[in-house]
Amino acid sequence: MTASPFDHPFLSGLIGDDEIAPYFSAEADLRAMAAFETALAKAEADHALIPAEAAKKIAAACAGFSPDLASLRSAAARDGVVVPDFIKQLRAAVGEEAGKSLHLGATSQDVIDTSLMIRLKAVVFLFAGRLSAVIAGLDGLDGRFGRNRLMGHTRMQAAIPITVADRLAAWRAPLTTYRDRLTEQNFPVQFGGAAGTLDKLWPEGPAIRASLAQELGLTDITQWQSTRLVIADIAGLFASISGSLGKIGQDIALLAQAGDEIEMAGGGTSSAMAHKQNPVAAEVLVSLARFNATAISGIHQSLVHEQERSGAAWTLEWLLLPQMTVATAASLRLAVELIGNIKRLGTA
Amino acid sequence: MTASPFDHPFLSGLIGDDEIAPYFSAEADLRAMAAFETALAKAEADHALIPAEAAKKIAAACAGFSPDLASLRSAAARDGVVVPDFIKQLRAAVGEEAGKSLHLGATSQDVIDTSLMIRLKAVVFLFAGRLSAVIAGLDGLDGRFGRNRLMGHTRMQAAIPITVADRLAAWRAPLTTYRDRLTEQNFPVQFGGAAGTLDKLWPEGPAIRASLAQELGLTDITQWQSTRLVIADIAGLFASISGSLGKIGQDIALLAQAGDEIEMAGGGTSSAMAHKQNPVAAEVLVSLARFNATAISGIHQSLVHEQERSGAAWTLEWLLLPQMTVATAASLRLAVELIGNIKRLGTA
Amino acid sequence: MTASPFDHPFLSGLIGDDEIAPYFSAEADLRAMAAFETALAKAEADHALIPAEAAKKIAAACAGFSPDLASLRSAAARDGVVVPDFIKQLRAAVGEEAGKSLHLGATSQDVIDTSLMIRLKAVVFLFAGRLSAVIAGLDGLDGRFGRNRLMGHTRMQAAIPITVADRLAAWRAPLTTYRDRLTEQNFPVQFGGAAGTLDKLWPEGPAIRASLAQELGLTDITQWQSTRLVIADIAGLFASISGSLGKIGQDIALLAQAGDEIEMAGGGTSSAMAHKQNPVAAEVLVSLARFNATAISGIHQSLVHEQERSGAAWTLEWLLLPQMTVATAASLRLAVELIGNIKRLGTA
Amino acid sequence: MTASPFDHPFLSGLIGDDEIAPYFSAEADLRAMAAFETALAKAEADHALIPAEAAKKIAAACAGFSPDLASLRSAAARDGVVVPDFIKQLRAAVGEEAGKSLHLGATSQDVIDTSLMIRLKAVVFLFAGRLSAVIAGLDGLDGRFGRNRLMGHTRMQAAIPITVADRLAAWRAPLTTYRDRLTEQNFPVQFGGAAGTLDKLWPEGPAIRASLAQELGLTDITQWQSTRLVIADIAGLFASISGSLGKIGQDIALLAQAGDEIEMAGGGTSSAMAHKQNPVAAEVLVSLARFNATAISGIHQSLVHEQERSGAAWTLEWLLLPQMTVATAASLRLAVELIGNIKRLGTA
Repeated sequence: MTASPFDHPFLSGLIGDDEIAPYFSAEADLRAMAAFETALAKAEADHALIPAEAAKKIAAACAGFSPDLASLRSAAARDGVVVPDFIKQLRAAVGEEAGKSLHLGATSQDVIDTSLMIRLKAVVFLFAGRLSAVIAGLDGLDGRFGRNRLMGHTRMQAAIPITVADRLAAWRAPLTTYRDRLTEQNFPVQFGGAAGTLDKLWPEGPAIRASLAQELGLTDITQWQSTRLVIADIAGLFASISGSLGKIGQDIALLAQAGDEIEMAGGGTSSAMAHKQNPVAAEVLVSLARFNATAISGIHQSLVHEQERSGAAWTLEWLLLPQMTVATAASLRLAVELIGNIKRLGTA
Repeated sequence: MTASPFDHPFLSGLIGDDEIAPYFSAEADLRAMAAFETALAKAEADHALIPAEAAKKIAAACAGFSPDLASLRSAAARDGVVVPDFIKQLRAAVGEEAGKSLHLGATSQDVIDTSLMIRLKAVVFLFAGRLSAVIAGLDGLDGRFGRNRLMGHTRMQAAIPITVADRLAAWRAPLTTYRDRLTEQNFPVQFGGAAGTLDKLWPEGPAIRASLAQELGLTDITQWQSTRLVIADIAGLFASISGSLGKIGQDIALLAQAGDEIEMAGGGTSSAMAHKQNPVAAEVLVSLARFNATAISGIHQSLVHEQERSGAAWTLEWLLLPQMTVATAASLRLAVELIGNIKRLGTA
Repeated sequence: MTASPFDHPFLSGLIGDDEIAPYFSAEADLRAMAAFETALAKAEADHALIPAEAAKKIAAACAGFSPDLASLRSAAARDGVVVPDFIKQLRAAVGEEAGKSLHLGATSQDVIDTSLMIRLKAVVFLFAGRLSAVIAGLDGLDGRFGRNRLMGHTRMQAAIPITVADRLAAWRAPLTTYRDRLTEQNFPVQFGGAAGTLDKLWPEGPAIRASLAQELGLTDITQWQSTRLVIADIAGLFASISGSLGKIGQDIALLAQAGDEIEMAGGGTSSAMAHKQNPVAAEVLVSLARFNATAISGIHQSLVHEQERSGAAWTLEWLLLPQMTVATAASLRLAVELIGNIKRLGTA
Repeated sequence: MTASPFDHPFLSGLIGDDEIAPYFSAEADLRAMAAFETALAKAEADHALIPAEAAKKIAAACAGFSPDLASLRSAAARDGVVVPDFIKQLRAAVGEEAGKSLHLGATSQDVIDTSLMIRLKAVVFLFAGRLSAVIAGLDGLDGRFGRNRLMGHTRMQAAIPITVADRLAAWRAPLTTYRDRLTEQNFPVQFGGAAGTLDKLWPEGPAIRASLAQELGLTDITQWQSTRLVIADIAGLFASISGSLGKIGQDIALLAQAGDEIEMAGGGTSSAMAHKQNPVAAEVLVSLARFNATAISGIHQSLVHEQERSGAAWTLEWLLLPQMTVATAASLRLAVELIGNIKRLGTA
């Protein structure tokens, strides 16, 4: 059951990412959901909304919680979201008394969106590191081959000679911007309750949200259950990164086709032609760029998120954003690899 | 490692499809790839291009073949496609002498595309059956509630009264067309060799391709390695189906919101509000429609498939078509379920 | 006021189409709308629903009708559609008595959609002719250069030699399919009245629709006000055509870059480099393919067309389909031109 | 010749924008192109690269320059870009001697991209003002109806009561962010010469670029001929704005359908039903949101911009960004109008 190459037993070797994909495993999601409930109980206990004892029991139960996946699966099919059954199971683990203090004032979307933010924050930190590796790879090429001559091409025609350094500068220019943006990206907590008003926690709601955010290392902002700009921003940044890496991939594939201005190690073999060395990573960078460019459209469609919460628009995000993240991860991984495989660029 | 909800341990309960998803498992793909090699060897033996004995050995090896997945995975990462390593492993299983007759004149794309067609043919047959179930469900509603009054709405405003039969007729109209198209859809064999010319099999190439197609129950057409209309056609049909079912979902969600003209069984529960009964399936039909409407764009981008074979354009198809198929499957599954849950439609 | 290059005073020379664009002028639309009203009155008079005299007066008024465009513009801004004011103006021209017989039983969507079908039918006929010209151009190249050698390329790498005839066969394969589809494409009348039930014309409604269709040379089918498959089908066909031509453009641009296997006449000049000859038409074929591949997504989004008529989904079609049509037209025009400019292909 | 509703004689009343569309007229483009050449000549004269007298003559010629549009059109068809013929005509107006100093060291893309930035800078300033008007409109509603009760809806079902202020807060939240981003958006000059290296102006190139940017009121950055992040950023911002306004439109259309919690002035009339008052502006906000969500995909596809300049990717931008801008303009215009037409929100 592997409709997506990102999850595929063997295709994920090419298109997936062993370091980033686990952040989108069911386990990682459930762990982050439990972290939300633990932090929420702690914040509510600190504000004397629930007994401190209950918060401790919730934390203990969450720490060792291993939910019944089959039950979660059939419940998700019924409820459209896994949280009601997750809470039900967790409440049973917590015990009847403390269980009344669990998930107090929260709604499904608070749990799911916050879990996503917790995980994306970690992912984006890793992306920034990978971008540095790509940039370092380009700097390395610049040091070795920057003064080499390269034929500049415009409109798919030889134009005038440039240097390898000129081409590398164009490749590198957006990458430093992306690294800054990744570093500055905010990851907000989601906490609004049933209809976004924290109705059951008045007037302590905002204070609890602030504590919750701090506990989880997230930014404290008003709930964004129906205003999904944060999702569009992250998706846009990911699509831009893979788009710029796709340009590098396309350029390298074109260089490899002409053949005289680049020398590569690695490259794929063919089942039909033993002599070929295919610039596989370069091509896949283009594929991943075009995949994210496709998916970003659906993310923007989901900005038309009706009323206080749209099941339709929200579910559409789930179908797109995790894969966009892994596509970006694979893109960064392949870019590091591809640049590392360049043995010569330009002509002396 | 489950970036896609279609493959997800618990979200697949909502968005996935237990009957169709297995057609996109690694196992199903490898089985269909082995079927290709078996059928190819048989066809080539029938045309005296390889010894009959070799074809038998290949068939036997394929029947029990269970490749080393870890090796396939790292090979796919290197080669961009799993076939070279698959053939290498299979050749070892076949034995040295008969192994020379394996995969003769074929290329990776022949194996992969044909495997896809074999599986899509089976899937589409199941889709036709599901469409019949949706249509039967609508017919049932028509029989029970067709004469009921329903307020017709245009531009999101009450317009004039219509009957439930009128609304059902609009829902049903495209579905019978889709069933016809699914039934009439051709699933062609792919067989072209290294650059599409069957160069190693001249002049028997076309005759072998015809035998191969017949053996596999596929249509015999000239190779389509770089002309991907068949992919765009199938994807377009799938997106149209889920689009029309999305319209039904949207209509039912709007009826459920108003509340007076529909009565539903089922419906999801909420973690925050015990009284609610959410039209989850109706909403997810909209999500799946918008997902496929997003993905179809990437399929059309991949029509710009350069030269004899584009790794970039081909890989992009892999990222989209299997998920579009499962989205369509889930869409059909949810439509049957949703229609079955309608207890009353319109007012007497 | 020319946000779209298709309408642009000078960019339309490159991207537009002088023969097809006029079918999307306001004048052509209004003319077809008047033709609808004339044919409707005639059909209704034939079925004795309105006086024959009124139908004559309506026909006469329509023949010479030149509406006040400023009034139409402000009315469209208010009503979301031009028809109410168009009918008001036309009614004034028809006179009070016969005016009562005008637009009887029809709604705005009947007029607008039918006008579109009338014009698309003419456009598609011209497209079929252009496809024949593209095919003839390829056949001509085949006759002159088919036996020439061309290096086959897979995954952007030289693979094995093929013939020019092999490459041309891949270019031509989908085009004959498209020509057949264009020829067989149905263009249905739209006629449903306020909520699709022809409520004001019962029981003659379907008979009048049949007469109307015949009068206008369109296919007679039940109204499709909220089931937009016909739009998705046409858009899908157009996007497929421009996609396949985009593949040809990409291939020619790659040939022109390598330089040794193609010789071209024409080609654009550069403001900075006098020596360059840019394969402009080849590149623009790629742009138009990617434009249509982008736009097809929105057309599929608009399949989620709620209730009896959705202003939101319908207006989205207007923003996409006419431009997809002109993009396809320009694509065909440029393909004919580009193929005609090939002076040599392959090497002897 | 009006394939796009944004340019259409009467549909532009609904979907277009009289204030913003003129920035995309041929005249505005040509004026900004002339401004580029004037500023370039001034900068080059200041750096003693051309005679001060020539710069004056160029400025004088540009001031009164009215190019032959028919010639531009046929030249754009040949060259893929209007600049070579524009310069040729302008050179004739400047005179032979000073003409040698015209466009020195620049390339077509420098002129076209800079013209776009000049105009987008002005447009974005106007957008910020409109966003303020939308926000003020929402603040006004908050003052009048903020304490009113509104039924909160999640997953298209009544959830719990909220206040009108709660709903308005969700509508307003992203808008202030957008206003900040519009205000902070950089609009960079484009200046790189034939292949981005300012080869003809070495070593004064960067200094001339700085002067040019200052003269035109743009930001001075290294050429971005093949790194199109600035385009993706602006398009992403526009699509986000229209997406968030689409959410408001969708919410209002749903309120208008239910009918009891909103009272509206305005609203469109129907050609078939005199009693209806359609929430046209609300629906069109959804259409425009989905249009931009569609188009953003193509912009991201064009990030795969090969080599030093890609005609294919660049032309694709032209087909999308101007229309995205006008869609955003119309979206803002309609949002102001729609909010102004709300006579009551919620129940006391």
